[in-house]
Amino acid sequence: MTISNNDLKKYSSLNRKIKRKEYQLFVVEGEKICKELLKNDFEFESILATEDLQNEFPLATVCSRKEIARISHLKSPSNVIAICKIPTYKINSKDKKPLIFLDNVNDPGNLGTIIRTLDWFGYKQVFCSKNTVDCFNNKSVMSSMGSIFRINCHYIDFDEFQKIFPQHVTYGTSLNGENIDSIRLGTNSIIVIGNESNGISKKIMDKLNNTIRIPGVGNAESLNVSVATGIVLNELGKINPQK
Amino acid sequence: MTISNNDLKKYSSLNRKIKRKEYQLFVVEGEKICKELLKNDFEFESILATEDLQNEFPLATVCSRKEIARISHLKSPSNVIAICKIPTYKINSKDKKPLIFLDNVNDPGNLGTIIRTLDWFGYKQVFCSKNTVDCFNNKSVMSSMGSIFRINCHYIDFDEFQKIFPQHVTYGTSLNGENIDSIRLGTNSIIVIGNESNGISKKIMDKLNNTIRIPGVGNAESLNVSVATGIVLNELGKINPQK
Repeated sequence: MTISNNDLKKYSSLNRKIKRKEYQLFVVEGEKICKELLKNDFEFESILATEDLQNEFPLATVCSRKEIARISHLKSPSNVIAICKIPTYKINSKDKKPLIFLDNVNDPGNLGTIIRTLDWFGYKQVFCSKNTVDCFNNKSVMSSMGSIFRINCHYIDFDEFQKIFPQHVTYGTSLNGENIDSIRLGTNSIIVIGNESNGISKKIMDKLNNTIRIPGVGNAESLNVSVATGIVLNELGKINPQK
Repeated sequence: MTISNNDLKKYSSLNRKIKRKEYQLFVVEGEKICKELLKNDFEFESILATEDLQNEFPLATVCSRKEIARISHLKSPSNVIAICKIPTYKINSKDKKPLIFLDNVNDPGNLGTIIRTLDWFGYKQVFCSKNTVDCFNNKSVMSSMGSIFRINCHYIDFDEFQKIFPQHVTYGTSLNGENIDSIRLGTNSIIVIGNESNGISKKIMDKLNNTIRIPGVGNAESLNVSVATGIVLNELGKINPQK
């Protein structure tokens, strides 16, 4: 079995969000993450691998390095690429974990790292404003280190999201918020994480019950958004009876 | 004042570590970080800016976009670049903060984010194994968001480092360590953070008093190293009387 020129063309277009949406497909790259894909029973359309990886990926279509390089987003392309199907996720409205809402997170590396961190702390879903970067962007997929196969990312307006969880108390991270240590966060919490440069948009900020802050004593203006999210999730883990 | 061809050539070579070492210079790029540079009284050799930024950077040599693009490491070059002097840092052996030692952290983005996070939590210095990526790498400088001007990075062998702080208790982050919540970390602590893929090298691990772990309940194999460091620093902040 070899790859057709049409498929090559189609797959190499998946670096664009509009094409991922059209075909409902995205690219994952590298041995480790392709193995995670198979472990997680995540649906895929095809796996493309060079001949030397045939034993490890018996389902793969054998491709030349050149063919794989055409699809790859990396400077040094890997020997294996999978073309995965974008799933249709259902919101779990009975989720017992606190809920994380990402407001306009822009950097795909940050989003992927946040997805990885959520997975570490046992979350199954995350909510993203519609202007948050696409979680199936190749950089996001890469930095999720396979957690993209386990975390359901829902792109949804904040108002609509809040209607599904009307009993939850809403918190937003902010440089002027209350010290996170001094707040008793419950499991019925929604935590909104803001944009890398501008924080939470005013429109959403106006709707929140509280703001929280990670106390710093130094000179840095702010924390990286995935670091801040990691610290918040670690704090939430302490109050979460699930853990 | 215009820039000479020789300087252009010299500055554009600074994307290589060997050249940064030879000239004892490194590049910072972008308005925000160049303003941080001036605020922090950090030594520089020159600032290069396009004409429209002359008011904001009166000390700058006016350059064309094309000249700046030759030095820039970015796909979309900024309008201002500074050529900074690599400082000679002295270890503060009386530091009252816990000490962070980075063992073979490879990714410059991670190192920069760690430097930014240290700055947030009020640290002034960090220790790096000699195989840790160069903190003056352009990606590291960028992701430090200006904190590179405030944090002293010391590249030093672990043995030599430990000799300077013989009374400190050593901890290493490890997936099999003790839950970080259940350990009483004192200010006289050294925390070793390991490599992105392989964790702490066996050579160093064998010398540590304790290992600590950030408790996770999910499926991710590990946390991103800068997220893990952020969580550790937040925990350390709670015990640190300085704060």
